[in-house]
Amino acid sequence: MEVAETKAELRVNGRAYKLPARPTVVVCVDGCEPDYLAQAVAAGQMPWLKRTLALGSGLTADCVVPSFTNPNNLSIVTGAPPSVHGICGNYLFDTASGTEVMMNDPKWLRAPTLLAALADAGQSVAVVTAKDKLRKLLGHQMKGICFSSEKADQVTLEENGIEDVLGLVGRPLPSVYSADLSEFVFAAGVRLMQKYRPDVMYLSTTDYVQHKHAPGTEGANSFCRMMDGYLDQLEALGCVIVLTADHGMNAKVAMDGTPDVIYLQDWFDNWLGTARARVILPITDPYVVHHGALGSFATVYLPEGADVNGARDRLARLKGMELVLTREQAAQRFELPADRIGDLVAVSERFTVIGTSASRHDLSALEVPLRSHGGMSEQRVPLIVNRKLPGLDMSRRFRNFDAFELALNYAQ
Amino acid sequence: MEVAETKAELRVNGRAYKLPARPTVVVCVDGCEPDYLAQAVAAGQMPWLKRTLALGSGLTADCVVPSFTNPNNLSIVTGAPPSVHGICGNYLFDTASGTEVMMNDPKWLRAPTLLAALADAGQSVAVVTAKDKLRKLLGHQMKGICFSSEKADQVTLEENGIEDVLGLVGRPLPSVYSADLSEFVFAAGVRLMQKYRPDVMYLSTTDYVQHKHAPGTEGANSFCRMMDGYLDQLEALGCVIVLTADHGMNAKVAMDGTPDVIYLQDWFDNWLGTARARVILPITDPYVVHHGALGSFATVYLPEGADVNGARDRLARLKGMELVLTREQAAQRFELPADRIGDLVAVSERFTVIGTSASRHDLSALEVPLRSHGGMSEQRVPLIVNRKLPGLDMSRRFRNFDAFELALNYAQ
Repeated sequence: MEVAETKAELRVNGRAYKLPARPTVVVCVDGCEPDYLAQAVAAGQMPWLKRTLALGSGLTADCVVPSFTNPNNLSIVTGAPPSVHGICGNYLFDTASGTEVMMNDPKWLRAPTLLAALADAGQSVAVVTAKDKLRKLLGHQMKGICFSSEKADQVTLEENGIEDVLGLVGRPLPSVYSADLSEFVFAAGVRLMQKYRPDVMYLSTTDYVQHKHAPGTEGANSFCRMMDGYLDQLEALGCVIVLTADHGMNAKVAMDGTPDVIYLQDWFDNWLGTARARVILPITDPYVVHHGALGSFATVYLPEGADVNGARDRLARLKGMELVLTREQAAQRFELPADRIGDLVAVSERFTVIGTSASRHDLSALEVPLRSHGGMSEQRVPLIVNRKLPGLDMSRRFRNFDAFELALNYAQ
Repeated sequence: MEVAETKAELRVNGRAYKLPARPTVVVCVDGCEPDYLAQAVAAGQMPWLKRTLALGSGLTADCVVPSFTNPNNLSIVTGAPPSVHGICGNYLFDTASGTEVMMNDPKWLRAPTLLAALADAGQSVAVVTAKDKLRKLLGHQMKGICFSSEKADQVTLEENGIEDVLGLVGRPLPSVYSADLSEFVFAAGVRLMQKYRPDVMYLSTTDYVQHKHAPGTEGANSFCRMMDGYLDQLEALGCVIVLTADHGMNAKVAMDGTPDVIYLQDWFDNWLGTARARVILPITDPYVVHHGALGSFATVYLPEGADVNGARDRLARLKGMELVLTREQAAQRFELPADRIGDLVAVSERFTVIGTSASRHDLSALEVPLRSHGGMSEQRVPLIVNRKLPGLDMSRRFRNFDAFELALNYAQ
């Protein structure tokens, strides 16, 4: 656990952060492809953002690949890639137990969060997430307020550092499948800032809306308009605000409007024999209604003695594949923990997703043409600060996990 | 001029084509990003296409880069890349005269078209384009019917092989900036097929709608619905139909909704001194209202003695650039005529376009957030045939300029 403190400066995971001089809010908007903001601003739906882009700093950044929620949220709050914090998906194949398991238990976390370090340094910290699956990871070993919209009716002082969130926010408990789940995050953030004025706040929404609605459509613009209003309130409260995203979002359909899927377990079964290779989709989570567990990233465990390079080359020739790497190549290029990915990592193209077996994906719940993420085509995300950033080298490659560095070291 | 005929087979530009057994229509839908079709089919707007994708062949293909209209239309009708036919943009720097000129004169064409060869082989051929700029190139040395919607009121038997097109089609002359300009192409195609039953027909629309409307929006779906109805009529007339596109289309905006432009002439002027390098935008044409001459492709003539590789590396590091190649590299990778491109070829990313100087682009005419093309991000296009294609190697890389090969050699 590498956390060091000097006066008014913290070192966490190899990076130095100044302590905030004013309330600082980092917002991770789930699935916020930059075009959502562009189209909404152009349509006059985001007056706060339009002003902020003119007067503050409107950068774009690269998120972590796989462009999924958990790896990126953990990168943002640790300031480090998955090779450091260990969370490389929602789901992994635990080679120790030989089983496929969810990775939302803090036991998988290999690095301290900046949030916990800030709290230990005496800063008041508040975290609000949309889904509860992220809460325990984000709030790991952190003193302060930490709760999810999803379970806002079940908070306790002991577990969440706060009581009666529904009373505080003045809104009913939102459905887990709704735009309200994210609005509750923003509404809670504003109320927390009004009532407690935390030094540092992290807000993380869910991409229910982005999985259903393309940039510029009424569903998307309405979400952006909602968000803009709350951000305006946070700014009026004197906050430094950084807006970023865990990943982008793209349509993932063939020309007939159905999901454009490479069923990779079927492909390997057909080639090597049933269940000889094991395809893992790290997007898998209990909430599959909006994406059917289909994303543009998979990792593959090959049978012992398999020709890894040969399999990589064969897979790379498949139509719809953007990039196939060996474990070592993927660990290096995407900064992933080599011991938690398979022998191969496969990334599909912008309009294509990867599934396991056709029989294992229930697509009947998809109400609209599939939109999803996971690949390099969803790597570009906003990194917007409501301040100028004097002294910042603008030519460097920005990452979404630079959010706290920009907020604390350049925007105060 | 390499055109050879054996019985019931033609050889044009190194490829062999069978003569059609039934009326054959190749449709080039300008700017038809595959997602337009996907979203429209999903929304129930394209019953003909939905049926065709189920019963026929729904391939996707790569268009020519630069993903512009003229190079791709000429590739489709010659069955060859620009290195063969010579048309590598709408616009070029004529090093012989030292001037920048339009490339819509047939004098720039270096290869015979398949259309002309089919006509010479006794086939009846009809060509309808939306804009007149393409008509002379497509109809070069071709006996048959060839006219544009734009100048449908000015046709003569001598020039166009047909009279009174407005009377034939029964629609008024459309505005050059309208969805009607493309609808006129389809309506004319159906009437020509009903009245003259040409052996081969080539229909080429304009991307006015696609520059304004994103996939899945009402403006886009309405266009797709219109197109679907005419294609259904052509099928009912017994036609083999191939639907492809000259290029895709993407939003090209920064997060504030304005065009995300790299002003490359300004960049070179700032680096090397005013007008030392010359940036050419081959998208430039007289019709700039819908894209302000901004696309994702530029070519650059460097001053004599310049360090070409050094300039390439420096330019490649610019944010928003996807790929920068030297003349030789670009000529090889994109199959372009080396003598008609500059020392460097620059391709920008999906959301970014390249301009010359800020002062030379009038963006005031853009009514909606910029959508444009030109880069590799717009290379994927539909290649749909209303027939099964027995014997076709499905693993090969398809190009939009395989359209006639599929139609004549596999779909009859």
